[in-house]
Amino acid sequence: MAGYAGNKDQVLNRLRRIEGQVRGLQRMVEEDTYCIDVLTQVSAVTKALQAVALGLLDDHLGHCVRDAVTSGGAEADEKVAEASAAIARLVRS
Amino acid sequence: MAGYAGNKDQVLNRLRRIEGQVRGLQRMVEEDTYCIDVLTQVSAVTKALQAVALGLLDDHLGHCVRDAVTSGGAEADEKVAEASAAIARLVRS
Amino acid sequence: MAGYAGNKDQVLNRLRRIEGQVRGLQRMVEEDTYCIDVLTQVSAVTKALQAVALGLLDDHLGHCVRDAVTSGGAEADEKVAEASAAIARLVRS
Amino acid sequence: MAGYAGNKDQVLNRLRRIEGQVRGLQRMVEEDTYCIDVLTQVSAVTKALQAVALGLLDDHLGHCVRDAVTSGGAEADEKVAEASAAIARLVRS
Repeated sequence: MAGYAGNKDQVLNRLRRIEGQVRGLQRMVEEDTYCIDVLTQVSAVTKALQAVALGLLDDHLGHCVRDAVTSGGAEADEKVAEASAAIARLVRS
Repeated sequence: MAGYAGNKDQVLNRLRRIEGQVRGLQRMVEEDTYCIDVLTQVSAVTKALQAVALGLLDDHLGHCVRDAVTSGGAEADEKVAEASAAIARLVRS
Repeated sequence: MAGYAGNKDQVLNRLRRIEGQVRGLQRMVEEDTYCIDVLTQVSAVTKALQAVALGLLDDHLGHCVRDAVTSGGAEADEKVAEASAAIARLVRS
Repeated sequence: MAGYAGNKDQVLNRLRRIEGQVRGLQRMVEEDTYCIDVLTQVSAVTKALQAVALGLLDDHLGHCVRDAVTSGGAEADEKVAEASAAIARLVRS
């Protein structure tokens, strides 16, 4: 089961809103909206995506990583390494 | 005229691909895809959005800011300040 | 005990190297080095600091958070929430 | 002349403060300060470095790029391309 199972509707709602924002960006470009206004909106969408990522990561630590640690064994090491790699990708993106 | 006028189709194509990626994220969540795989894809979409932003900014500097400087006058100051503010929002998002 | 206890020397070495890089930046500015070259070096120092942060976070998850989960109880919730908040600060900085 | 010539003292003061913060980080690690507190301070230093970068970039656009555009010719293209590349490094760091 995914770590975000308990928040699935919330995650989906956020992603649908982001999809709408990306379509809004397309309209802005089609209508030749001033560059700076398009850029402001791109920054807003980027922040919304990061909020989704931070939520997923929080769920992942609180469920998947936690469960692996509770179960013990080598899987816990693997989960921590995997979470760290995901955090690094996020920080560098 | 927007600074990205000469690249409008390219910008729109990128935004449509990003829209498709965001819909792909929704499918991943609906199908309970493992958190880390969803996170990897969120990082990819974030990078794609940043590439759009960097392209728009390059066009803006090379057209809007440049034209304002060539025309001279107070508008040039304003355009530089505006571009710097947009860069700051981008770096902090 | 801090989660980075086993890597303390490595963390200190990285921070000393970063201190040297920041002093190098001061010299560059004192000698009126071209802006773009200073900026390239600022980006390098920022990346070095992020690498320190990612290392600390990995140690924190693998030791502090993990130990709290193994011990069980409310402390585990607290540690996960605290780690998520630290990740959010890192992603947004 | 560097674009930040008029702000040189301010840039140097900021960099000296950042050097002090990095030394503070070393003390924190030597004294086994709790990971999350070290991480919070690393985020603060990263933000201070980004503020230096954004200031340098603003000076660069307002002086070096602007002067190149006013002078006209191929140098203007080069300066814009160079600034865009520096912004990209900053966004991705």
